[in-house]
Order: sequence, then structure tokens, then C-alpha cells
Amino acid sequence: MNKPSEIPAGIEGRLSTRDLLIRAGVEQCTEGGFQMTGIETILRAVGVPKGSFYHYFKSKKAFGLAVVDAYADFFHRKLQRIFSDEQTPPLGRLRNFVSEAVSGMSRYAFRRGCLVGNLGQELAGLDDEFRRRLEEVLRAWEAQTRRCLEQAQAAGELRKEANAGELAEFFWIGWEGAILRAKLTRSARPMHLFSDCFFKQVATR
Amino acid sequence: MNKPSEIPAGIEGRLSTRDLLIRAGVEQCTEGGFQMTGIETILRAVGVPKGSFYHYFKSKKAFGLAVVDAYADFFHRKLQRIFSDEQTPPLGRLRNFVSEAVSGMSRYAFRRGCLVGNLGQELAGLDDEFRRRLEEVLRAWEAQTRRCLEQAQAAGELRKEANAGELAEFFWIGWEGAILRAKLTRSARPMHLFSDCFFKQVATR
Repeated sequence: MNKPSEIPAGIEGRLSTRDLLIRAGVEQCTEGGFQMTGIETILRAVGVPKGSFYHYFKSKKAFGLAVVDAYADFFHRKLQRIFSDEQTPPLGRLRNFVSEAVSGMSRYAFRRGCLVGNLGQELAGLDDEFRRRLEEVLRAWEAQTRRCLEQAQAAGELRKEANAGELAEFFWIGWEGAILRAKLTRSARPMHLFSDCFFKQVATR
Repeated sequence: MNKPSEIPAGIEGRLSTRDLLIRAGVEQCTEGGFQMTGIETILRAVGVPKGSFYHYFKSKKAFGLAVVDAYADFFHRKLQRIFSDEQTPPLGRLRNFVSEAVSGMSRYAFRRGCLVGNLGQELAGLDDEFRRRLEEVLRAWEAQTRRCLEQAQAAGELRKEANAGELAEFFWIGWEGAILRAKLTRSARPMHLFSDCFFKQVATR
């Protein structure tokens, strides 16, 4: 899922120092969590002096929140791209999202999951600002997914009586669980198993 | 879900020093993760000197694995108690598990989740021994849940053509996601939403 290499490059195609710091932050936080990530490690990865860091971010927490924002933005555009693919029927788009996520996870040997799931697990009980921001991000992904499911409903792919909003919530609740489990099993099985059950439930029979 | 106060007391009803250390470990690791938990904090919580810690555990990692084992054991017995309740039909037992989990989470204002989900998210990519042990624990809970679903099937509560093993896997994949999300929303909604969808899917119509 997490592809730091795809985190936004500048218009001119070159990453600014700030972007490089954030990209390294996504990588480090996804693998080792926020609290264990040292600013020194980030600086070393990017090769910039400490003063540079504090030029862009007033604190480590401000940096962490900027990392979440960048990831949220990257992911929002990814969902937008997949869900606006007019060549594919709506439910097929959600299936394509699942396939892309499986490829993304396997590219990192199922060691990296979703930054939002990782930080949510780590920080939900510890920091209210992170908790609220991470929940907001998930709500936004749900909203995008709900629209996709509504289109599936309009196209007759999804049962008329289904509640697209609740199904989108259900999808994201379970999907974050599937990503966690894929890391534990080092395999795509939980992602396939969850999505197969999900599609079996929603599709018109 | 996590009720450290219910972590095993000795036969005589008093907790040994080792039990007290482990109980403090469950609490600390569930709230702040494994890596951020300092042995000093554990010692202070229990009020024993450092030498005592190394008398029981050869390293922090050995302690962490013992914490996982104690939690797994506690949870195994909890599932056993709920799933062997002959007064309740099998699917009702799984519903009772959900209700107990909701009460357990709300008791801690949805700040604490499942130790296995927490440590899984944190350590799956970092330590293979933890990863394998945590996956084993989830497999054991799945096996208990599968037996409950098979009983539901025998009782005609669950569709004959359903695959109880896969449904148990599906339940635990999504349930860990629901616990994470309950921490993020500080509410039981994700737990109810996930389980309602789950029961709607499995129940005979």
C-alpha cells in the first residue's frame, strides 16, 4: 500500500528538501512507528543538516502530522485515479484497488502496511491530535469508497437495499485489519480472503 | 478487550512477582507499544528492584514474549468460557464475545485495544519471533471461533454451504480492524458495525 517513492514530487519533477524529509518520514514511520523514529535518522537518510529540519517543521510532532497529510494526499489521489476509471465497472474499480494494494504490499515483502493503520494503532491512545487527524483520513477514504459503491448500486452491481455508506465503513474497518494481518502472515491471503468475503456479500446474486 | 486486572493470579489468589511484572507489561505494551516501554517503568509500577526483573526474564524481548503468552492464555480461557456456554445458541455466544469486548473497551474509554493487534502492527516488520508468535495466537483464536461456527452450522444457525474456517479467519481479520478503529473513533461503533455486517452475512435467512 505504502509507496513512499510515489509521494508527491514538485511540478518540475524534482523533490524539494521538505518533500524528501517527508518521504523519509513516511518510510521510517511505516516501518518503525512514530515514537521510535529519530529526527537524526531522517536527516541522515536525506543528507541535510539539523537546522534544515527545523526550518521546515517546528517540532517532531508537526513533522509527523505533515507526514500523515502527505500520505493522505497521495492516497486520496490514488483512490481518485482508480475510482474514476470509466473503462471498468464500479465494483471492478474497488477490485482494482485491492489488486494494486496486494502488489504494493508484496513489493515490500509484506513488511510495510498502511501508515494510517500503523500510526493509528500506535498513537490513538496517546495523542488526540494524531487520533483525530488519522480518523479524518479514514473518513475521507470511506467517502470516496461510498461514492464508488453508490455508482455500483446505480449500475445494478450492488443490491438496491444495501447501505453504501455502511458498506464503505465496513470495508475500511476490515481492510485495515487485513493489512495488519498481511504483515503478520507475510502473505496476501488475508487481503484476498477479506475482499472475497466482502464482494460476495455486496454483489447482487 | 484487554483487562490486565484479569491476568492470571496464582492458585492462592495472590499474584507472584513474575505475574505482577507481566500484568504491568500487558498494560504498558497495550498503551504505549513494546519498544517505548522501559523496563524501569515496569519496575516502578510493580515496586521491585532491577535484579528481580532479570531473575525472571533474561532480556526485555523474553519479557515481551512472556507478556504475549500471558495475554494469549488469558484470552484463550475467556473464549473457552464464552464459547462453551450451553445456555446460549452458538452464534449467540459469538455475539456475547462481541458484547464483552465492547464493555471491556469502554471500561478504558476505548484507549486500549488488543495487545496482539498493537504489537502486531508495531513488530511484524521488525522482529520475526514476535511476528510468528503473534500470528500463532491469532490462529488459535480463529480455531476456537471456527469450532463455535461449526456448532452454529450443526444447529442450523449458519448456512450449510458456508466455510466455517474461512468465516473464522474473516472474523478475526475484520475484528482486529474494528478494535483499531474503535480506538481512533473512541467509540463502539466500528465494533458494532463490523459484527452486525458479519452476522448478517453468516446467518441463515
